[in-house]
Amino acid sequence: MPENPSKDYFVGVDLGGTKILAGVFNAKLELKGTTKLSTKADRGVDEVIERIARCVKEAVDECDLNLAQVRGIGIGAPGAVDTDAGRVIFAPNLPGWKDVPLKKALEKLLDVPVFLGNDCNVCTLGVFDQEYKAKPRDLIGIFIGTGIGGGLILNGDLYHGHNLTAGEIGHMVIEVNGPKCGCGNRGCFEALASRTAIFREIQAGVKEGQETMLTDMLGKDLSDMRSGDLRKAIRRGDKLATKVVEAAAEFAGIGVANLINILNPEIVVVGGGVIEALADEMMPTLIKAAKEHVMPGTMSGIDIKASKLGDNAGITGAAVLARRGTA
Amino acid sequence: MPENPSKDYFVGVDLGGTKILAGVFNAKLELKGTTKLSTKADRGVDEVIERIARCVKEAVDECDLNLAQVRGIGIGAPGAVDTDAGRVIFAPNLPGWKDVPLKKALEKLLDVPVFLGNDCNVCTLGVFDQEYKAKPRDLIGIFIGTGIGGGLILNGDLYHGHNLTAGEIGHMVIEVNGPKCGCGNRGCFEALASRTAIFREIQAGVKEGQETMLTDMLGKDLSDMRSGDLRKAIRRGDKLATKVVEAAAEFAGIGVANLINILNPEIVVVGGGVIEALADEMMPTLIKAAKEHVMPGTMSGIDIKASKLGDNAGITGAAVLARRGTA
Repeated sequence: MPENPSKDYFVGVDLGGTKILAGVFNAKLELKGTTKLSTKADRGVDEVIERIARCVKEAVDECDLNLAQVRGIGIGAPGAVDTDAGRVIFAPNLPGWKDVPLKKALEKLLDVPVFLGNDCNVCTLGVFDQEYKAKPRDLIGIFIGTGIGGGLILNGDLYHGHNLTAGEIGHMVIEVNGPKCGCGNRGCFEALASRTAIFREIQAGVKEGQETMLTDMLGKDLSDMRSGDLRKAIRRGDKLATKVVEAAAEFAGIGVANLINILNPEIVVVGGGVIEALADEMMPTLIKAAKEHVMPGTMSGIDIKASKLGDNAGITGAAVLARRGTA
Repeated sequence: MPENPSKDYFVGVDLGGTKILAGVFNAKLELKGTTKLSTKADRGVDEVIERIARCVKEAVDECDLNLAQVRGIGIGAPGAVDTDAGRVIFAPNLPGWKDVPLKKALEKLLDVPVFLGNDCNVCTLGVFDQEYKAKPRDLIGIFIGTGIGGGLILNGDLYHGHNLTAGEIGHMVIEVNGPKCGCGNRGCFEALASRTAIFREIQAGVKEGQETMLTDMLGKDLSDMRSGDLRKAIRRGDKLATKVVEAAAEFAGIGVANLINILNPEIVVVGGGVIEALADEMMPTLIKAAKEHVMPGTMSGIDIKASKLGDNAGITGAAVLARRGTA
């Protein structure tokens, strides 16, 4: 028997390059259950859309509910998104995704209203609405994982910008002539402080002959290294892992300082997989570096915090989007 | 005889570390005349406030008007400003200026309503309202002079931030471990692309023995070098001046790209003394570097332009502030 027979549920979907995560939330936005599917992005746009629909159905079924009880579905997609039109304009990590009418396609498959947003914007909305109860007037969300993305809450609402790509903080240059970034430039925030950057530096250290217990744990080529492995190594006193993660945290702090100088928000919330695994290791250094790099006098009363939502920021924000859209 | 006996005029004041500029505008915000006084900041807060009042009176008298015909006075001040309370919170270039009730003090001296803003915010407001007729939804103003400051128009209005210091783009780090900045950090935008940065590099080049006609023009110590001297030298083919200004323009373009990645505005307007003197020399390189450093796909339809208001951006924006305040 369903917990509640009326249309009192929301589904939040986090569409990533490798996995789809769907979460079912009740009217108070309490999480009732989740389902995960791999994205299989290489199978093309239509197949991915069908997998999203399947993931939503599975999650609803897991909670002993049915789609008729779902009032709205929110979805965060990786790329530039036209929220009003419900289209993904382009998504660099999803082959073939150019001008895809995702909202319309999913509504056809699921017969429930669908609301679309950029993934990092949606994560920021989740943090803002659920973790901070929509109280701060201006909040910046920074998500550090394989890459680095962000979202801006300005004057109490998500800020999108002219081409709807505001918050692409990962490609802010903070070290001209620094390490090469996936975007083709050098010294981007993402090339200095993401998991990709950390792993690159660890591998470079190993190649130079520096000792690390990570090679004992994972083998010489460090295949399948995860943020959790770094945490284990650091807690056991591994010098290379400690040094590399410390440097990344310092770069992250400089990136945060840049954003505070430019936008002077009330709160900067840092999340994503790297921070979820390494908050204790990275946040003190990050906060110290940020304070050292803001203009004197501009940081009074401004908080820099790790998000507590972890991997659920995306589905939570997507559920907020669905609740807003159907309100 | 006054041109118009009703209260149909506005005065805009640009308060700088070295000079005070006041401009009288009619109801259509056409500039009728200006007066300039040196700031004499070292004489203390009260003396500077009296000099601002004197500058306003002189400007009004120059236009054959009297204060009774002035509906409002706007003023842009260099530092953190509480616009609502009309107080200068702090101003790094004005000794002793900490929590100064400038609005109240000037209203007592002049008996005309006074409206206060941060100098770069006020310049941006002038560019937005008068040069772009308040049409762009999101516009960033960047002002390159002795330092670098900025202002943000987001969703059609000035954005101030939590401590009212938003737009301090000059201290965004773009080259970690780059040249020392006045703020104590290294590699700030201001330490790479301001007039101060350009002069420092020219002087370093001369010290290293590089030839430049600037030493013939100004003497070995290059005292009193101005942006206009650089323009002359570049137009005559001076290699050192060309190289240094080109490098500064490239850094400025990277700074602009960072802001486009973060905020995705419709228009970026670049102004200030350096651009006023060197727009032809710097803008093509600046725009090229910006385009090379934005995330692919995010710059479609975004314009980067030199402001045409030049040194009058501050007084124009201040007059806009006064007109808004008295509307």
